[in-house]
Amino acid sequence: MSHNTFGHLFRVTTWGESHGPALGAVVDGCPSGLRFRPEDIQSFMDKRKPGQSRFVTQRREDDIVKVLSGVMPQDDGTMITTGTPISLVIENTDQRSKDYGEIARQYRPGHADYTYDVKYGIRDYRGGGRSSARETAARVAAGAIARLVIPGVTIRAALVQIGKHRINRDNWTWDEVDNNPFFCPDPAMVPVWEAYLDEIRKAGSSIGAVVEVVAEGVPAGLGAPIYGKLDQDIAAALMSINAVKGVEIGNGFGAAEISGEENADEMRMGNDGKPIFLSNNAGGVLGGISSGEPVVARFAIKPTSSILTERQTIDADGHNVDLRTKGRHDPCVGIRAVPVGEAMFACVIADHFLRDRGQTGRQSHQP
Amino acid sequence: MSHNTFGHLFRVTTWGESHGPALGAVVDGCPSGLRFRPEDIQSFMDKRKPGQSRFVTQRREDDIVKVLSGVMPQDDGTMITTGTPISLVIENTDQRSKDYGEIARQYRPGHADYTYDVKYGIRDYRGGGRSSARETAARVAAGAIARLVIPGVTIRAALVQIGKHRINRDNWTWDEVDNNPFFCPDPAMVPVWEAYLDEIRKAGSSIGAVVEVVAEGVPAGLGAPIYGKLDQDIAAALMSINAVKGVEIGNGFGAAEISGEENADEMRMGNDGKPIFLSNNAGGVLGGISSGEPVVARFAIKPTSSILTERQTIDADGHNVDLRTKGRHDPCVGIRAVPVGEAMFACVIADHFLRDRGQTGRQSHQP
Amino acid sequence: MSHNTFGHLFRVTTWGESHGPALGAVVDGCPSGLRFRPEDIQSFMDKRKPGQSRFVTQRREDDIVKVLSGVMPQDDGTMITTGTPISLVIENTDQRSKDYGEIARQYRPGHADYTYDVKYGIRDYRGGGRSSARETAARVAAGAIARLVIPGVTIRAALVQIGKHRINRDNWTWDEVDNNPFFCPDPAMVPVWEAYLDEIRKAGSSIGAVVEVVAEGVPAGLGAPIYGKLDQDIAAALMSINAVKGVEIGNGFGAAEISGEENADEMRMGNDGKPIFLSNNAGGVLGGISSGEPVVARFAIKPTSSILTERQTIDADGHNVDLRTKGRHDPCVGIRAVPVGEAMFACVIADHFLRDRGQTGRQSHQP
Amino acid sequence: MSHNTFGHLFRVTTWGESHGPALGAVVDGCPSGLRFRPEDIQSFMDKRKPGQSRFVTQRREDDIVKVLSGVMPQDDGTMITTGTPISLVIENTDQRSKDYGEIARQYRPGHADYTYDVKYGIRDYRGGGRSSARETAARVAAGAIARLVIPGVTIRAALVQIGKHRINRDNWTWDEVDNNPFFCPDPAMVPVWEAYLDEIRKAGSSIGAVVEVVAEGVPAGLGAPIYGKLDQDIAAALMSINAVKGVEIGNGFGAAEISGEENADEMRMGNDGKPIFLSNNAGGVLGGISSGEPVVARFAIKPTSSILTERQTIDADGHNVDLRTKGRHDPCVGIRAVPVGEAMFACVIADHFLRDRGQTGRQSHQP
Repeated sequence: MSHNTFGHLFRVTTWGESHGPALGAVVDGCPSGLRFRPEDIQSFMDKRKPGQSRFVTQRREDDIVKVLSGVMPQDDGTMITTGTPISLVIENTDQRSKDYGEIARQYRPGHADYTYDVKYGIRDYRGGGRSSARETAARVAAGAIARLVIPGVTIRAALVQIGKHRINRDNWTWDEVDNNPFFCPDPAMVPVWEAYLDEIRKAGSSIGAVVEVVAEGVPAGLGAPIYGKLDQDIAAALMSINAVKGVEIGNGFGAAEISGEENADEMRMGNDGKPIFLSNNAGGVLGGISSGEPVVARFAIKPTSSILTERQTIDADGHNVDLRTKGRHDPCVGIRAVPVGEAMFACVIADHFLRDRGQTGRQSHQP
Repeated sequence: MSHNTFGHLFRVTTWGESHGPALGAVVDGCPSGLRFRPEDIQSFMDKRKPGQSRFVTQRREDDIVKVLSGVMPQDDGTMITTGTPISLVIENTDQRSKDYGEIARQYRPGHADYTYDVKYGIRDYRGGGRSSARETAARVAAGAIARLVIPGVTIRAALVQIGKHRINRDNWTWDEVDNNPFFCPDPAMVPVWEAYLDEIRKAGSSIGAVVEVVAEGVPAGLGAPIYGKLDQDIAAALMSINAVKGVEIGNGFGAAEISGEENADEMRMGNDGKPIFLSNNAGGVLGGISSGEPVVARFAIKPTSSILTERQTIDADGHNVDLRTKGRHDPCVGIRAVPVGEAMFACVIADHFLRDRGQTGRQSHQP
Repeated sequence: MSHNTFGHLFRVTTWGESHGPALGAVVDGCPSGLRFRPEDIQSFMDKRKPGQSRFVTQRREDDIVKVLSGVMPQDDGTMITTGTPISLVIENTDQRSKDYGEIARQYRPGHADYTYDVKYGIRDYRGGGRSSARETAARVAAGAIARLVIPGVTIRAALVQIGKHRINRDNWTWDEVDNNPFFCPDPAMVPVWEAYLDEIRKAGSSIGAVVEVVAEGVPAGLGAPIYGKLDQDIAAALMSINAVKGVEIGNGFGAAEISGEENADEMRMGNDGKPIFLSNNAGGVLGGISSGEPVVARFAIKPTSSILTERQTIDADGHNVDLRTKGRHDPCVGIRAVPVGEAMFACVIADHFLRDRGQTGRQSHQP
Repeated sequence: MSHNTFGHLFRVTTWGESHGPALGAVVDGCPSGLRFRPEDIQSFMDKRKPGQSRFVTQRREDDIVKVLSGVMPQDDGTMITTGTPISLVIENTDQRSKDYGEIARQYRPGHADYTYDVKYGIRDYRGGGRSSARETAARVAAGAIARLVIPGVTIRAALVQIGKHRINRDNWTWDEVDNNPFFCPDPAMVPVWEAYLDEIRKAGSSIGAVVEVVAEGVPAGLGAPIYGKLDQDIAAALMSINAVKGVEIGNGFGAAEISGEENADEMRMGNDGKPIFLSNNAGGVLGGISSGEPVVARFAIKPTSSILTERQTIDADGHNVDLRTKGRHDPCVGIRAVPVGEAMFACVIADHFLRDRGQTGRQSHQP
């Protein structure tokens, strides 16, 4: 992985800033012969799109994805991939023209403003430039292509924690996830979060969150130890999402607290002659290689640093200043990170599926 | 990162199995002109070496590192790097000859035995082969070279949790870390862990742990957004260590629970005209770029799956079997992961230091 | 290098087909703070643009480059790079709508039609799809950015051979290169080529050519042996250009015919205290590292396979057919390869400049 | 490719200097389950080994390859690859201890001495250090492993030119290649070269040469356009060999001289229902993808710069000096480059075989 590209055989390069004319992704290494409809991409874009509820930024973007290369359009409106790079472009339509004067020179505490300036000596301050979460739109588009590569794999994510309010895992209902503005799988938690986030939002404050991603149907055998482990690449992919501060696989940090007896997932042969794991503490990855069990990861998102409360900071000239951030921000960026987490998962698994196929010659290791 | 190599300009490739004739690393991209003594490497090897206390595996290995290339030996016993690849080889001397018959065909629950077999169709079952933690000896040797590249950076790690016993951070004393067999920074916790681990060890059981790594002196400006973020590469590097199930930066999962006001590290100009952060919730990384603050990460290690208690599993022929693992194992692999975490940190920071120097032309961004 | 990306620190990813809506490049790793005018890119595009004379394809394309990211537009019309990926897009405006029926199913002898079909099972037959020389427009745009990175380096190319007609090197005049439609540095050869190519063109035939590229001002010390040699990367970059079948550095194949005495470039200290090479048989590269002398390479371009003469071939259904290619083709694709060769050179040298700076910390090795 | 590693899925990293304790290669990405005998590697080593005739360097090296990892030794003496990195080590046994004083400070004209010093500020002058052709021993060992990956592919090379003496292609006899000390396929040329090289050798001079490599049985469909073209990677691999100054595929530079009618390889359906090419001007590669025809490349090797004749040069202190190189050198390094060319070919084709399998899922595209 280098700079703005990730993946080894299925490679995604993203480009673009929050308030430039457009942003996009080039998906390289996608196999040929995969058929899709433009709306197959769009449905994922819509999940991430701003302005969907009062709990996310009120910026208005249609996030229509244009496919500029790598496909042969068919008469029935579908597109078939040709094996050449797929260029996906999303125009920025709602860049409010305003005076950025203050933001242009002052560093939001907790934001990348300062570090970009230190590193590059120049910074696109308009809407956060490249450090804006808007970049993740390109990831979601790429993730939709990645899903085509692994049709037997179901990748879903949900928000499992906002602030200190965690869902009750016993209530987990996948169908519920699309029924509320939080991608919450626990119906009982929805009203709690609603009230809590309204409070946060009205205060001009923000709050952190945790997202859980689950991939079912991942064949056993994906992952390339030692330094191309499946869970390593998942960790990198999730940590690259804006505002993410922690990643865990399976039991994660919980694994530190338990004994070998509790942690090791026992096995038995199933009635169909296939191996069965009696538990999945490992989160579907052993020694960096998928076990055939669902691959499960969680990632923690910090609260956005764009808040109304005045905070101490400095400006580019080295003066102390106090700054409050106005504008249209997400009270909980974790919400819109849900489809982004899914997209990154899809890209990593598609990449490892192709890598494994190259290395072992098998289409799938699942018996 | 691909297969068995990590890093972009400072690149490390490791090879070798637990019970083969040797294992090693090739360090590529190390700048020329760096001087070191063989014992500079050895001191780090000794920290990771097995058999140092009753709390780690009783395998006996000297772990002497031979430097086969990439250096000019000097008359005074030092070596100077020449800019060509540095080949580091460590012989395996204590591979007990024994009958591996049972282990060769049975899958330890929670271990990579099963997944290696599914992926490759063949597996070096002797001592765990490539999936053995013995591979990390090569990382520690490489990490010692990495430290030469970033002489102004101090990288230290400590064990902060074993099972549910967490250190008291108020007691943190770096000097204490080398005074006990646990790399524990809290003197008060040492006897607690000692008693607890003795119990675990006598029961033939195992337990998880958490390691914290801190890098001080990292110049601001390291990291290459979006997909070569410093924290992303740290997450990947730590997750690639055997048995690691979670990684967090700065506040980590704690960031999910707090508000934007609590989380955003405020800034002020210091008396010396340099920017000061009033807190370091970010763990030294903002937007994937180092801020100049200490870079802080933690990783969770699961309990080793090699335990004495009988566990249900299957064998390579698809039969149900019950397995107990005899042999010389670590009751808490987290202990020996401490120098490994340091080594991975050193490699990532050295790599990003060189990358940043290439991209920006500056030796250091610190004012 | 993988698929559609080349370079290690200065990385270029191109995408797009001949008759799709657009094509482009993403330039990643360009340092920040470089200032340019849109016309700085456009002037290079114009050299490669079709329709400039009767000796090149009559397709009409303006080849206007849109810069969609990675820059901050300034009030004076210039742009400053920000260190983030630069997305360059060129719209296809002259895709003639026509019936591709025959070409869609028949393989032009000597063309990539057959191999794309074998590999991918599907092929964008419209104008050659991704295998069209039109892809090189994106390279030229990227090359213009690369030149910003190495302002002290002058990269020029010229056509030195068409068919068996070679220029007289004693007549070499750089100023002449832009005065004729062939990029020919030998004024005496221009009328010869003119008459010769008119003949070829009228016959609906085509002819091969040789391009020479010279980079002056390359500092000594660029190149990363053993497998990132400067000349190796140049060879790869030039060989990746459509229709190129051979690459040589310095004396090239001529080096096979001479003795060590004739070949080895002697050295002396100059009056200014700097080393002088008394000859440059090496073409500016020794052991894969630049010597400070001009870097000189030549590449051979085969005649385009799109010719009017009927040729034996097969179609996708496995039938024998005879095919003549109509359409607007270059009688000598070597002509338009001249600016492409320059662009590839610029990208490779910019990449190695950044890599070397990362590895050694020096801005330039030239005393 | 970066620094000292080449390949994308089948990756080779070499390390080591001419007069260090050892040199070697790590082969990463080799599929599991491939069986070989140690002598399968050794037979290729012996072809490259010094001291085989009076026409190559008289250094004495056994070049025994030790396999330190990545295999399971079997009771019958064979080894089976396990999918983990294969570490190959070759000890240096004939490093003559001598006073390097003069060479240590003086730059051989035409050699990498000067450029290594400029780049790294330090240089292992003992026997040429890393720039010595001795490094190619590691490539040959790696190439032997690569051949296991592509058992249906036959890769052979021959010397086709020494100085101005070219073989008569009509006399080409593969069986002759191993019957003479030159790998010459033309029996009539052997005595000519013998007399010619004796003359060169006695004069303490050296001469250039051209090697041709042919790979038969390469399935159609290998290669990843645009920047992972099969011929591009071959060009890079061959250009990375010491002293190589030119590479060509198929007709190569000859393609510049002919017309489209002459160059384009016509096709017909064969009696067995498979496509037939009526010629192979393309050298088996069209649009960067293999066509199923033999892949043919040639590379030019310059004369070694280590000659007895006194030559003008400078030393590290900036003084003019005159230098003659004593020692055991190859009068024609092209001879020992023959097995090296084969090895690089094998590595590139193995890599592309795995890449293609990953991308397309097909084991082979050949009908």
